[in-house]
Amino acid sequence: TRFAYVRHFEQASEYFLPRDTWLVIRVDGRGFSRFTQAHNYVKPNDVRGIQLMNRAAMHVAREFNECCAAYGQSDEYSFVLHKSTQLYSRRLSKIASSVSSAFSSAFVFHWAEYFPTTPLQYPPAFDSRVVSYPTVQHVRDYFSWRQADCHINNLYNTCFWALVQQGGMTPPEAEARLDGTFSNDKNELLYSQFGINYNTLSAVFRKGTFLAKEEPGAFPADAFLPGGCTDLLPWPANDQSVEGFPVSPLAGAGALEASVAGLSVSPSEQEAGEVTEKADDTAAAMSSSSTSHLKGRALRRALAKEERKQRKAANLRKDFHALHIDIIGDNFWATSATPGTKPGLGAVLFAERSADAPAPGTLRRSLSQELADVL
Amino acid sequence: TRFAYVRHFEQASEYFLPRDTWLVIRVDGRGFSRFTQAHNYVKPNDVRGIQLMNRAAMHVAREFNECCAAYGQSDEYSFVLHKSTQLYSRRLSKIASSVSSAFSSAFVFHWAEYFPTTPLQYPPAFDSRVVSYPTVQHVRDYFSWRQADCHINNLYNTCFWALVQQGGMTPPEAEARLDGTFSNDKNELLYSQFGINYNTLSAVFRKGTFLAKEEPGAFPADAFLPGGCTDLLPWPANDQSVEGFPVSPLAGAGALEASVAGLSVSPSEQEAGEVTEKADDTAAAMSSSSTSHLKGRALRRALAKEERKQRKAANLRKDFHALHIDIIGDNFWATSATPGTKPGLGAVLFAERSADAPAPGTLRRSLSQELADVL
Amino acid sequence: TRFAYVRHFEQASEYFLPRDTWLVIRVDGRGFSRFTQAHNYVKPNDVRGIQLMNRAAMHVAREFNECCAAYGQSDEYSFVLHKSTQLYSRRLSKIASSVSSAFSSAFVFHWAEYFPTTPLQYPPAFDSRVVSYPTVQHVRDYFSWRQADCHINNLYNTCFWALVQQGGMTPPEAEARLDGTFSNDKNELLYSQFGINYNTLSAVFRKGTFLAKEEPGAFPADAFLPGGCTDLLPWPANDQSVEGFPVSPLAGAGALEASVAGLSVSPSEQEAGEVTEKADDTAAAMSSSSTSHLKGRALRRALAKEERKQRKAANLRKDFHALHIDIIGDNFWATSATPGTKPGLGAVLFAERSADAPAPGTLRRSLSQELADVL
Amino acid sequence: TRFAYVRHFEQASEYFLPRDTWLVIRVDGRGFSRFTQAHNYVKPNDVRGIQLMNRAAMHVAREFNECCAAYGQSDEYSFVLHKSTQLYSRRLSKIASSVSSAFSSAFVFHWAEYFPTTPLQYPPAFDSRVVSYPTVQHVRDYFSWRQADCHINNLYNTCFWALVQQGGMTPPEAEARLDGTFSNDKNELLYSQFGINYNTLSAVFRKGTFLAKEEPGAFPADAFLPGGCTDLLPWPANDQSVEGFPVSPLAGAGALEASVAGLSVSPSEQEAGEVTEKADDTAAAMSSSSTSHLKGRALRRALAKEERKQRKAANLRKDFHALHIDIIGDNFWATSATPGTKPGLGAVLFAERSADAPAPGTLRRSLSQELADVL
Ligand SMILES: Nc1nc2c(ncn2[C@H]2C[C@H](O)[C@@H](COP(=O)(O)OP(=O)(O)OP(=O)(O)O)O2)c(=O)[nH]1
Ligand SMILES: Nc1nc2c(ncn2[C@H]2C[C@H](O)[C@@H](COP(=O)(O)OP(=O)(O)OP(=O)(O)O)O2)c(=O)[nH]1
Ligand SMILES: Nc1nc2c(ncn2[C@H]2C[C@H](O)[C@@H](COP(=O)(O)OP(=O)(O)OP(=O)(O)O)O2)c(=O)[nH]1
Ligand SMILES: Nc1nc2c(ncn2[C@H]2C[C@H](O)[C@@H](COP(=O)(O)OP(=O)(O)OP(=O)(O)O)O2)c(=O)[nH]1
Ligand SMILES: O=P(O)(O)OP(=O)(O)OP(=O)(O)O
Ligand SMILES: O=P(O)(O)OP(=O)(O)OP(=O)(O)O
Ligand SMILES: O=P(O)(O)OP(=O)(O)OP(=O)(O)O
Ligand SMILES: O=P(O)(O)OP(=O)(O)OP(=O)(O)O
Ligand SMILES: [Mg+2]
Ligand SMILES: [Mg+2]
Ligand SMILES: [Mg+2]
Ligand SMILES: [Mg+2]
Ligand SMILES: [Mg+2]
Ligand SMILES: [Mg+2]
Ligand SMILES: [Mg+2]
Ligand SMILES: [Mg+2]
Ligand SMILES: [Mg+2]
Ligand SMILES: [Mg+2]
Ligand SMILES: [Mg+2]
Ligand SMILES: [Mg+2]
Repeated sequence: TRFAYVRHFEQASEYFLPRDTWLVIRVDGRGFSRFTQAHNYVKPNDVRGIQLMNRAAMHVAREFNECCAAYGQSDEYSFVLHKSTQLYSRRLSKIASSVSSAFSSAFVFHWAEYFPTTPLQYPPAFDSRVVSYPTVQHVRDYFSWRQADCHINNLYNTCFWALVQQGGMTPPEAEARLDGTFSNDKNELLYSQFGINYNTLSAVFRKGTFLAKEEPGAFPADAFLPGGCTDLLPWPANDQSVEGFPVSPLAGAGALEASVAGLSVSPSEQEAGEVTEKADDTAAAMSSSSTSHLKGRALRRALAKEERKQRKAANLRKDFHALHIDIIGDNFWATSATPGTKPGLGAVLFAERSADAPAPGTLRRSLSQELADVL
Repeated sequence: TRFAYVRHFEQASEYFLPRDTWLVIRVDGRGFSRFTQAHNYVKPNDVRGIQLMNRAAMHVAREFNECCAAYGQSDEYSFVLHKSTQLYSRRLSKIASSVSSAFSSAFVFHWAEYFPTTPLQYPPAFDSRVVSYPTVQHVRDYFSWRQADCHINNLYNTCFWALVQQGGMTPPEAEARLDGTFSNDKNELLYSQFGINYNTLSAVFRKGTFLAKEEPGAFPADAFLPGGCTDLLPWPANDQSVEGFPVSPLAGAGALEASVAGLSVSPSEQEAGEVTEKADDTAAAMSSSSTSHLKGRALRRALAKEERKQRKAANLRKDFHALHIDIIGDNFWATSATPGTKPGLGAVLFAERSADAPAPGTLRRSLSQELADVL
Repeated sequence: TRFAYVRHFEQASEYFLPRDTWLVIRVDGRGFSRFTQAHNYVKPNDVRGIQLMNRAAMHVAREFNECCAAYGQSDEYSFVLHKSTQLYSRRLSKIASSVSSAFSSAFVFHWAEYFPTTPLQYPPAFDSRVVSYPTVQHVRDYFSWRQADCHINNLYNTCFWALVQQGGMTPPEAEARLDGTFSNDKNELLYSQFGINYNTLSAVFRKGTFLAKEEPGAFPADAFLPGGCTDLLPWPANDQSVEGFPVSPLAGAGALEASVAGLSVSPSEQEAGEVTEKADDTAAAMSSSSTSHLKGRALRRALAKEERKQRKAANLRKDFHALHIDIIGDNFWATSATPGTKPGLGAVLFAERSADAPAPGTLRRSLSQELADVL
Repeated sequence: TRFAYVRHFEQASEYFLPRDTWLVIRVDGRGFSRFTQAHNYVKPNDVRGIQLMNRAAMHVAREFNECCAAYGQSDEYSFVLHKSTQLYSRRLSKIASSVSSAFSSAFVFHWAEYFPTTPLQYPPAFDSRVVSYPTVQHVRDYFSWRQADCHINNLYNTCFWALVQQGGMTPPEAEARLDGTFSNDKNELLYSQFGINYNTLSAVFRKGTFLAKEEPGAFPADAFLPGGCTDLLPWPANDQSVEGFPVSPLAGAGALEASVAGLSVSPSEQEAGEVTEKADDTAAAMSSSSTSHLKGRALRRALAKEERKQRKAANLRKDFHALHIDIIGDNFWATSATPGTKPGLGAVLFAERSADAPAPGTLRRSLSQELADVL
């Protein structure tokens, strides 16, 4: 129609995010001071609220394939898209609006599972922004920024509400009491006045939640969890994967076990073993039969194709694990410079490899060696 | 902290929409072909689906104060923010993400009211985009574009599903039958083959839904509804304003009456009469007592202040009315050039006046005359 | 080549300016405090410098067809592109960089014509920015902003240098003397202390230079020059149109006369008379012969085509006139609401018509009447 | 004034380029097909034109401190700003417009030095664009893209004009002859038909010009010039540094020698030796006297400060060298992974270090060792 010319006006607000850079999308609750009050959130931290945020984030992280990890605390969640992503051709509005929409939608959708006795009073909203970071170091610093924020606010809030709820102060009195204090003053205050050792509080509150996309059991805990991870919360039993996604290790009955298992214990190592065996079978089969007659370029191609196939399969097996760990320190980000040492989880998740590359170690060693020999 | 530098990277993806231009935000369902199938939407139009879209749009339109009007059809809704808006300082990401979030959130929130027997299977999402238009003519053409789209698609879909559901054709056969046909061919087909007079189908389907922000009963129907509006759907009885907003004329029992009344009939004219009387009281009181001793600049200021007060009060009384009318033709957009004629609704809603200006006629005549005399 | 992928990265910094809005490009000398000192510019105003700026601006205004007008003062120049422009598809970088480049290039190119005895010491540079304005009112306010700036700075500088050069003050003393003074204080100071009536200083300094694109002699002065224009500077005799552009009324020997003539006096009215006559001939010929047998739509089309032809011819005859006039007051911007009155130059230049539309009055009256009759 | 509000409209077209990324600005002549013809450029390559482009580029590269290198061919030049640059706070318009302006201005300014007998007919213009690249690899690929373009076009043009000028073909015939040919076909054609060995043509034409910012004599040729550099053109004798910049090794009489010397031969090594000696003196003096009493943090700070001082001094000594070398191959980009090998020039110029960091080797070894010991 002759009105269609108005379409062209969209071009002027169509922005493309820089290519080959990491995209971080942060959603933040609009007016959650009011929302948390209206819904009687526990102060300073409401486990139901946190789990609901995690559930909504899990939905978003699964919906957008190139998402490698996410981190949440308070009324916010940050999602990292791998720098190779071409989601919506990197159009800013599409990414920002779709992520905030999916998050909000899932938040309302799952509300009753976490707040079964508190009806939702009105539709909550979340804004979002997309930021482009050129290197992994920036992504690391971004996570550190958000976790440091979590730490500072949580320490403050813990003191504040202890003074008010247990110490009988009025909010203004509590505020005045904390004014000008440093971290150690606050730790000291908690311990001396309320017998609280801040560091023994649940890591969920102190560290926030990090969602890592990994295969079930692919990483033994010691590879990337220097501080350990002792207090993973059980995932509610009524959580179910409704959208045809692979059932999460966090979802359904037994989620806690599976999740912890994913980090350290034996059952998953068995499972991982099986996976590896199967891969080995395939590879062995392939290497002996299908590639034995190939040479040079042809062999290289066949191996590259097989590698892509393995990667894709590995990627399909992956899902998000919720961890409450330190993501600031070097252990999390260490690359395995020294032979024999294992890289940190951060180094694994934010590798240069494309988003669907396999977790290190899942790709059969001999395959990459063969490749190396040929190249 | 030393990590806070990452914050500065936000600047590079922070875009400001042009000032003093109309902002149109269009949300569109992501993958609604699948969503409508998965939830057994009636084909080609599901009244429940349309009402839910309207309900979600009503929520958004109320949330963002500078919204003057909205228009919806299929899985999309467009919201117009007055050109004077300073919402989020006109930051693109904030506007786009908040609107899509609020819409999605309300869609899920109200789902069960419209689909009481169909559980929501998964959280739906909507993308959004913001477009800037410099003049009202562009806004008019934008609405025309969307309503023409509604018309074209609905005529096609009506034929298509008549051929399939009543004519026993397979979808490919129906598609082939319609290939190359023009509007009048399709009208003819519907009439001759299925006895359907397209123009008597519900205006909801043919025209989509236009949400207009107006006072209860401010506009008699003949001012802006040349084609009339015969088939406004009753608003579900269980709809309630939960967020402290003024109860909509569309909400609650009797909404149909109120809504229609808002356009033409007597009860609302009574109400409007009362409002006018009250305003007259205030004005009379003010003009006689508080301004009688003022002269020149001082009087001008006092009157301007009073005008702003009246505007604000008028604006607070306003809420959105759902109309299923022609928004392409000149009647809707006519300004009242000739004395004695009334302007069309479009001309009223998208007036140059600031977003919170009163509907014409609600501002006491003598007040503006006084102003005119002084100036 | 396999490197060509880097090309795609250009997309992320490719911005499109809003459509159907007026584009204003302002260039400003980089470090002209130093440049003017290094080249011994007369203080506070150097006529040679101003003329060189005007010459460079004339070049730019001619190079970019959609430019309707320009305004310069101090080390800056602003160019207005008609809102219909599709220059470089409205790509920001292309427009900003090309304009600053063309301006700088012409500035250096013409340097020696205006500073024949002062060698250019180093290549000067100008930055530029592009701003989008939705309405003519904004364009008007933009020009007012720049001319007000010219006035304020020039009044200050005139006082400052009078105090220093004639009053024997040191610069800090002069600054202190002027601190806290208002416009009328400064006027008073100039008059009482130095016998200078500020308003009799050359309008070039007080008003800056406005470049208007018009036909030779198309507008009698009283149409748009309420304040008159008494002190147009003679354009240097050695200025020549080197690029195949039509010779400007400002260029070559006799430029002063032609220019002033263009505004008020008889020779140009004669010329304008001739032009009109010629147009009349064409029109008469056309209307009698080629259109007499046409009716309705066909006639309308023929007339529209003829109108476009006349417009194009009129546009080709146009060139830029340098005026030193008030562009803030209403006279300049007045549209001809009352029959019999002539519109101001601003209203003519920034008409809604497309960039190549004819100046009002150049289009044969009977033609538009015929159109009006038919439509 | 009340008009100043128009200023705020600038915000909507104010874009900030992504931080911590390499900025590449490419200028390109507007309509240089016509310009080169109008000024009788030699075909296919005019040495005067190339030298003038290099001269203008030298001006730009010197003006913008964070510029590390530039590359030119045909009517275009690309400038790389170090990723740490905060030039104009990374505002797109300012950078794009200033660079194109400075380039154009210098081009006209220096015209007569290179075309003493050809008057400039009209002011030439250059557009520019700014592109952001996240890693050095992208910068490398960018240079490769432009040099490959140079190669392809130059090989084609060489053949084309040989066929026309020596082979007596008409341009269409020459075009037809070359249609569908590959690189080796063209090489073969040149050799067999015209006795031209393409690889012995001047590297200026085949490789374009790379401007590298380095200290006089800092790098012995073998470090980064695998292919050698045999045909550097003498820089015109009348070139002078007029803007207070350090005299370039390329400027003035003896420039050729200095330039070549800068790459390989003894005089500059002597000079470099002197520089190093002086640095050693300072360092020795400092390390023995000023730091001997310092410990830990204090020592670290003192050393860091000294390092910054040395860096700054080193940077001030640097100027641009024009090279006509291969910038695609690995030698140019090689980092010195193996001890004992020297890094390529590309690796040196585009190091992670901040823009004003010293060339490797100029920082006294013991200083960094001391730092290493302490840290
Ligand atoms: N009681 C309680 N409050 C929480 C919890 N998590 C977040 N909140 C509250 C604390 C803060 O008031 C609010 C988050 O702060 P924001 O800075 O995001 O402010 P708010 O969302 O009110 O405004 P905004 O629209 O984001 O500018 O949410 C929780 O677990 N329990
Ligand atoms: N049965 C039925 N379908 C509807 C109704 N309203 C909308 N739809 C469907 C028809 C279309 O398949 C779809 C809207 O078309 P779109 O172009 O927005 O496509 P879709 O949302 O699938 O993809 P997208 O993510 O927007 O690109 O929604 C309805 O009332 N009844
Ligand atoms: N003597 C003299 N100076 C002039 C004349 N016209 C302009 N100027 C000088 C006065 C100001 O110092 C300077 C323009 O001020 P700006 O605010 O543009 O500053 P400037 O160009 O130095 O810095 P910028 O790079 O634009 O930020 O040019 C003139 O006719 N005569
Ligand atoms: N004869 C001659 N021509 C040259 C030389 N260097 C560049 N040119 C010409 C060849 C091309 O026609 C032109 C550069 O091509 P472009 O693609 O930049 O086209 P042009 O500048 O005409 O148009 P544009 O405004 O950039 O789109 O400059 C030279 O050394 N000698
Ligand atoms: O979403 P579609 O397919 O209707 O088409 P579009 O909305 O014009 O495309 P996009 O959503 O990608 O802007
Ligand atoms: O939302 P706040 O108040 O925490 O602060 P912000 O997120 O930095 O501000 P904005 O949401 O306006 O970007
Ligand atoms: O200028 P061209 O024709 O070489 O092509 P381009 O530079 O890719 O196009 P543009 O200058 O329009 O970006
Ligand atoms: O250039 P100035 O100092 O007159 O100030 P500005 O032009 O407003 O600032 P900028 O050039 O940085 O936009
Ligand atoms: Mg915020
Ligand atoms: Mg919040
Ligand atoms: Mg928050
Ligand atoms: Mg779409
Ligand atoms: Mg859709
Ligand atoms: Mg749709
Ligand atoms: Mg400036
Ligand atoms: Mg300046
Ligand atoms: Mg200035
Ligand atoms: Mg180009
Ligand atoms: Mg070119
Ligand atoms: Mg080119």
